[in-house]
Amino acid sequence: MSAETPHRPPLRTGMARSLLREIAERLEALARTGEASAIDLRSLPMTAGDRKELKEALGSGDVAATLDVAGRSEVWETRFAGVWWLRHFGDGDHIASEVIEIARVPDILSAHPDDMRASLKRLNEDLAAAEEPPATEETGNG
Amino acid sequence: MSAETPHRPPLRTGMARSLLREIAERLEALARTGEASAIDLRSLPMTAGDRKELKEALGSGDVAATLDVAGRSEVWETRFAGVWWLRHFGDGDHIASEVIEIARVPDILSAHPDDMRASLKRLNEDLAAAEEPPATEETGNG
Repeated sequence: MSAETPHRPPLRTGMARSLLREIAERLEALARTGEASAIDLRSLPMTAGDRKELKEALGSGDVAATLDVAGRSEVWETRFAGVWWLRHFGDGDHIASEVIEIARVPDILSAHPDDMRASLKRLNEDLAAAEEPPATEETGNG
Repeated sequence: MSAETPHRPPLRTGMARSLLREIAERLEALARTGEASAIDLRSLPMTAGDRKELKEALGSGDVAATLDVAGRSEVWETRFAGVWWLRHFGDGDHIASEVIEIARVPDILSAHPDDMRASLKRLNEDLAAAEEPPATEETGNG
């Protein structure tokens, strides 16, 4: 029977509460002026316990999305409309970054104008190709 | 041994090609003016074969989302940026409606200002409640 390490409650520093106040301010700015913003959790001195506390406080709401753009990402709206959690995965499914975005919808879910123009070009090419008559073989007869 | 019904290829009427041309026009308008639009597939005379043809032509891209707002919905960006497929489910997981939305991001993924304001109120109430000192019991002693 292996020795069990005692269960240590995760260390919480108060960062989560502080961030929730920050998020409230930014949500107020968003609602008032339309200004979106983001908080990169990697840039902050947060413990695993702080991140867990924040994630539980924010919860989840109606929308969840997955993306595959430069690696896999998961995005979900928290239980606070306009407050989104973005989690980007690196190789081997480790969490490479976590960002709280305060916006009507995260930028990353929105199509970029350049991409839309490239898509339009492709779609028109597909349509043109579908409308060409089948190629006839030249056999030299008649 | 039961009699097998012969496999009938799904009936296709040309609606899919016609819709792809319509989608190309709307994508051009979106790219040029920012104007978004939607095509309700239920309102059109499409066979199951047409829908299958359209779905295969549009394919899927980088973003997929699920929502739970008045029933379950699945939303995915097609392989054409700005062209989204929205599938709403009714009771028992039957497909209640399908809509092609031509937009940078579907409206339904975007937080509504009223919801953001309600969320801000809740968040501020949660923060205020967390900052109240613990209630002391009045026991009549000292």
